[in-house]
Amino acid sequence: MEKYKVVVSRDLGPDAMPYLFARPELEVIVWPEGGLCERKWLLENVQGASGIIVTLAEKVDEELIDKAGPSLKVVSTMSVGYEHVSLPILAKRGIRLGYTPDILTDAVADVAILLALMASRNVKQTTTIVQNGDWPNYTWSPFLFCGPQISGDPLPSIISPSESTTDIDTGRVAGFLGFGRIAKATLKRLVAFGVKRCIYTGNPSSSSKNSSSEEDDKLASQLGLSPGSITRVSLQDLASRSDILFVLAPGGQSTYHIINASIFSLMKPTSILINASRGTLVDSYALADALREKKIWGAGVDVVEGEPGEVRKDHPLVKEERCVVLPHVGSATFETRKGMALLTVRNVVGGVLGGKMPTELELKEYI
Amino acid sequence: MEKYKVVVSRDLGPDAMPYLFARPELEVIVWPEGGLCERKWLLENVQGASGIIVTLAEKVDEELIDKAGPSLKVVSTMSVGYEHVSLPILAKRGIRLGYTPDILTDAVADVAILLALMASRNVKQTTTIVQNGDWPNYTWSPFLFCGPQISGDPLPSIISPSESTTDIDTGRVAGFLGFGRIAKATLKRLVAFGVKRCIYTGNPSSSSKNSSSEEDDKLASQLGLSPGSITRVSLQDLASRSDILFVLAPGGQSTYHIINASIFSLMKPTSILINASRGTLVDSYALADALREKKIWGAGVDVVEGEPGEVRKDHPLVKEERCVVLPHVGSATFETRKGMALLTVRNVVGGVLGGKMPTELELKEYI
Repeated sequence: MEKYKVVVSRDLGPDAMPYLFARPELEVIVWPEGGLCERKWLLENVQGASGIIVTLAEKVDEELIDKAGPSLKVVSTMSVGYEHVSLPILAKRGIRLGYTPDILTDAVADVAILLALMASRNVKQTTTIVQNGDWPNYTWSPFLFCGPQISGDPLPSIISPSESTTDIDTGRVAGFLGFGRIAKATLKRLVAFGVKRCIYTGNPSSSSKNSSSEEDDKLASQLGLSPGSITRVSLQDLASRSDILFVLAPGGQSTYHIINASIFSLMKPTSILINASRGTLVDSYALADALREKKIWGAGVDVVEGEPGEVRKDHPLVKEERCVVLPHVGSATFETRKGMALLTVRNVVGGVLGGKMPTELELKEYI
Repeated sequence: MEKYKVVVSRDLGPDAMPYLFARPELEVIVWPEGGLCERKWLLENVQGASGIIVTLAEKVDEELIDKAGPSLKVVSTMSVGYEHVSLPILAKRGIRLGYTPDILTDAVADVAILLALMASRNVKQTTTIVQNGDWPNYTWSPFLFCGPQISGDPLPSIISPSESTTDIDTGRVAGFLGFGRIAKATLKRLVAFGVKRCIYTGNPSSSSKNSSSEEDDKLASQLGLSPGSITRVSLQDLASRSDILFVLAPGGQSTYHIINASIFSLMKPTSILINASRGTLVDSYALADALREKKIWGAGVDVVEGEPGEVRKDHPLVKEERCVVLPHVGSATFETRKGMALLTVRNVVGGVLGGKMPTELELKEYI
């Protein structure tokens, strides 16, 4: 029996790999070392492959696809993003693409909230004080270590419990650049924290149709918000009105440095910026300037342009006291990564055998 | 006109202090320095006072109350806790007590969630790596930096969207030691993160009646949870079944070291412990041991026994990589602290003038 060759750029762990090895139809070739898969190894080994498994770190371009040759049926990436994959070339050659949407929505939304809380509550400053052993040197005072509260001012509801606490303008304004699955999961969490107003700007790189105000009101109702509390606005309005601005849109050319100095100049001095999508959307130097010049209150980023190689100790965001930097751990939970790995191998098997792929990207529009 | 003397142990800021100074009936004496109010100064100045404003740092005991003398009508503390105040003595002498409940509920619940996310997602470890400039030395791999996910496993709902996602046993179990306002506000937030099951042990120091299972089901319904999803359990069951165990009960003798080595020996190796109430409830050394011996996954504490003086660089919890330590910032938002300060001055004025106090503790049961 002739076997289908599947090239795997990274060992995907003990839950997913046996699913491949157990298939007698497959010849599975795995990058044998622990670190990053070398491009040279990948180019040599993909020749004659029917399927390729990659992560964000491997570029799937014309050169790689040419090397694989006409046997290639499917590329399966263990990621929700696909800016590392040349979609037009896949589409033109009828090669299918598997990716891992949905499954990481909750894990990334959790990190968006984590960053929002860390940035507003000055966690980088206070944990540094504790870790350096300086806590004993601080005397309690009414506003020591204070930051803005996610839910806004609780006093009116204590003093006058009967008054209009459902007024959508009493709390914080949550703003979203990109309003897809992760943004909506983040908003769902924010509502439980008391946020009553959401504004958003659609993903500028999306060619799909914009959502309508009826859809926004339907979502508002599902989340227990008032009609009219979720509204689409311009990027300028998003910048000037948001108390917490979440960047949750795909990377790539069309969103490169979309958050830049001119955006920060519009933002409120009490506002915070969160980026849990791709580093390229935010101009790191402009963000560091905005923090230093107190144009915004704080920032939390899970992704940084040039990560990880260029994000050293002297990186402007690492140096900034009001900027929390996490090392791209948005989807880093055991449950989600295991699920992503399982989807990735199921996608490649489905594609190689010409069957159903659990999560396949529709490529028609990219031809 | 004879004036009522009000002694204030700390400047409460530009929103609250004018409320006192504007009252012609009051003679307001404020600790004139920035740091901690000296006991000696307080004892000297309270003589003949009608009202005293304190914070957690000032002990209100028989000596202080004797010094004030029969003129004393009210003690007003800028805190939700009152373990620093001798309630039986106030009760016996008919002195009223103002405190600041409710208003800090949201701010503290926010920090409980912040700590839960930080502890489960390994934030102390990963931010240390980034801040030390070590991120470039890490190569992505499927389970690098992973921690347990608050909502549990997302895979079943991706693979089989139709299956029972409302099953209360599919997600994480949130456990609460103490199930008052802050615990309930924390649970409300957790539900938005996908938590469907809550167990709790009542505050062991409370003499008020326990809540009933009807009340639990009513709360479950308000939060969108299934009937039976909120249940009271023993402390042992709480320890063995919780995935996230929140300590949110008052301090004092009856809860001293209630979380100790025998509790940690019952907990799951994937579980996390959060303390956002008082440091005395948790045995710090036992917690550090449990983390080092991997009896639990991680911990997040906003409070530590002996804080701040004894919490130096070599404190066992500060040294532990899997323990996030915040410097008691639970209520530290501008909005909440301003609200607490306003309640504190309104309470003292109400008490001194014999009128209504916005938030007064009922002292009858302490006689």
